[in-house]
Amino acid sequence: MYAVIMAGGRGVRFWPRSREKKPKHLLDIVSEKTIIRETVDRIKQRIPADNILVVTGKKHARDLIRQLPEIPLSNILIEPVGRNTAACIGLAALHVRRKAPEGIMVVLPSDHAIADSRKFIDVIGAAAQTASEENGLVTIGITPASVQTGFGYIERAGLLKQVGQAEVFRVKSIREKPDFQTASAFVQSGNFYWNSGMFVWKASVILREINRWLPDLYAGLMKIDAALGCPEEAAVLPRVYKKLASISIDYGVMEKADNVLMLNGDFGWSDVGSWDALWEISAKDRSGNVVLNNSRVIAENSEGSLIYNPRKLTALVGVKDLIIVETKDALLICKKGRSQDVKGVVEKLEEQKLKGYL
Amino acid sequence: MYAVIMAGGRGVRFWPRSREKKPKHLLDIVSEKTIIRETVDRIKQRIPADNILVVTGKKHARDLIRQLPEIPLSNILIEPVGRNTAACIGLAALHVRRKAPEGIMVVLPSDHAIADSRKFIDVIGAAAQTASEENGLVTIGITPASVQTGFGYIERAGLLKQVGQAEVFRVKSIREKPDFQTASAFVQSGNFYWNSGMFVWKASVILREINRWLPDLYAGLMKIDAALGCPEEAAVLPRVYKKLASISIDYGVMEKADNVLMLNGDFGWSDVGSWDALWEISAKDRSGNVVLNNSRVIAENSEGSLIYNPRKLTALVGVKDLIIVETKDALLICKKGRSQDVKGVVEKLEEQKLKGYL
Repeated sequence: MYAVIMAGGRGVRFWPRSREKKPKHLLDIVSEKTIIRETVDRIKQRIPADNILVVTGKKHARDLIRQLPEIPLSNILIEPVGRNTAACIGLAALHVRRKAPEGIMVVLPSDHAIADSRKFIDVIGAAAQTASEENGLVTIGITPASVQTGFGYIERAGLLKQVGQAEVFRVKSIREKPDFQTASAFVQSGNFYWNSGMFVWKASVILREINRWLPDLYAGLMKIDAALGCPEEAAVLPRVYKKLASISIDYGVMEKADNVLMLNGDFGWSDVGSWDALWEISAKDRSGNVVLNNSRVIAENSEGSLIYNPRKLTALVGVKDLIIVETKDALLICKKGRSQDVKGVVEKLEEQKLKGYL
Repeated sequence: MYAVIMAGGRGVRFWPRSREKKPKHLLDIVSEKTIIRETVDRIKQRIPADNILVVTGKKHARDLIRQLPEIPLSNILIEPVGRNTAACIGLAALHVRRKAPEGIMVVLPSDHAIADSRKFIDVIGAAAQTASEENGLVTIGITPASVQTGFGYIERAGLLKQVGQAEVFRVKSIREKPDFQTASAFVQSGNFYWNSGMFVWKASVILREINRWLPDLYAGLMKIDAALGCPEEAAVLPRVYKKLASISIDYGVMEKADNVLMLNGDFGWSDVGSWDALWEISAKDRSGNVVLNNSRVIAENSEGSLIYNPRKLTALVGVKDLIIVETKDALLICKKGRSQDVKGVVEKLEEQKLKGYL
């Protein structure tokens, strides 16, 4: 059993904490540990460090290696450029297949939060058994807690089997991020689950599916496979990888494949996609304020806010529902519910070439 | 003609910029110059530096002397303790009387803003002429721009005379800060003016009035007067001053005196009493944001706010009507309209003995 942690994202919505050089998963945003550290520690309860692979970009590899000293260097796969999840998973699958031709591969995003680690490990175990027995593409669906347009959805069909405590469902369809009305209908129906972006399958099975649905990408992967471990790898990988289609595994494979299964991941999952999401999952004081990283706060008639300002005293007077994040060089004040628009700030910084803040 | 600038206040509502060691008048809050520097420059158009006295406390004397190099050191009067405006004005009057027995004394708060300096100088000139001719207590009343409970009011009676462009009115009453209903009635009547805290009179006249209405305070002042310039001054001043009644000139003298006159000060006055007042008088961008001291701000759908953060980038997303003030060690976020409550933050800091932030 192998874990593949995808650590290619930037997490631009966590600006000003996240920066080009310091993406979300390398930050201690959810707890005192960095998110990738949490992710590795969680899966290590089931999969030894030697079997954990991490796929990342050049810019962040050094920092990631420093944060994960127990992961063998040869397990840190560096993408020459970002090419979305289909290429990333394909590359990792090549490595897993070399290590174990029938190896099970647990694909995990690097930057999500999970409240109940024990339950998570149980579900992953059941998913791995299912992937092994069924040769299927096993997804983890999250029971929707609200109508969300920012997630993809998994439409469940009938029960296939029971594996331990877990029910394994057939999947009727995998859906892209819907509009609000569609999302509402999904959530009301009771048959739709959030797509957590976690997948469990045999390396050989996902490579076969990539070959079927994305033959050009597969051809590129085969060129890379031929060069892996040879002197020409350093030249071949960037040359070929650059030309790979940039497509998500959901859109490229999962929506089309017919052997997709789903287990329900009822373990307190959050993608921690924004400061708003972080407020949602964090412990609050009596006024509904979330005070992060031991920030010192004096609040007068103020409620429902999130404060990250470990360096200075923060005083709030009569304010409500704000996201307040202060770093060494920048201060963000954002209305709660609007933190998706933090992306717009970063875009403005790029337009204005204020590189120091990026 | 002499100016007496009262620089004893702390301006606690301008926390976190104002501190025990750095009160409001020593800060560049309204313009690039400090408020006391503005105040001195304004009155210097009419009164030479040698005739300008400044009354301040021990804590701030050194900083004030540094900011006002042209004021003779002997004109910086240091109160051993703060004893409100009656004692402060009495002490200054002793000094003015020694310099010129019939000297006119223009009493000015150190921390107010005035938009039209030229008009101000004209009004002060007319007030001085009036004080000289009438031996009266001349006040400067401001036409109310709104219902305010934070100011005292002057009730005007009939016109006494015209001095140049200025009309001189008799005064029917001087009123303490009223409640909201009373203030509304005042403003509607058209006969009430904000008490600007600026006064013009002969030193001899105000001392005579203090003798009449505050005889104990007067007796103390006479003890100090006897010691002024003698070796025992250093011992007598603190011993006597400590025992003086702490009472305002308005309550102690002006409300009772019968020779009170008023000129209208229509020169863009503000007491700049809070961050809200500063927002009111400051230049705004198209979204109604006030950006102070060249703070760098990126605003997305944000309006009506005041931002002081010269050291860092400030990004606003979807926020409205906030006061945002960041200093080296503290960050204040206050709902506009609530900046009176900044005082409560300072009180909490005192209670919690967080002296570094005071």
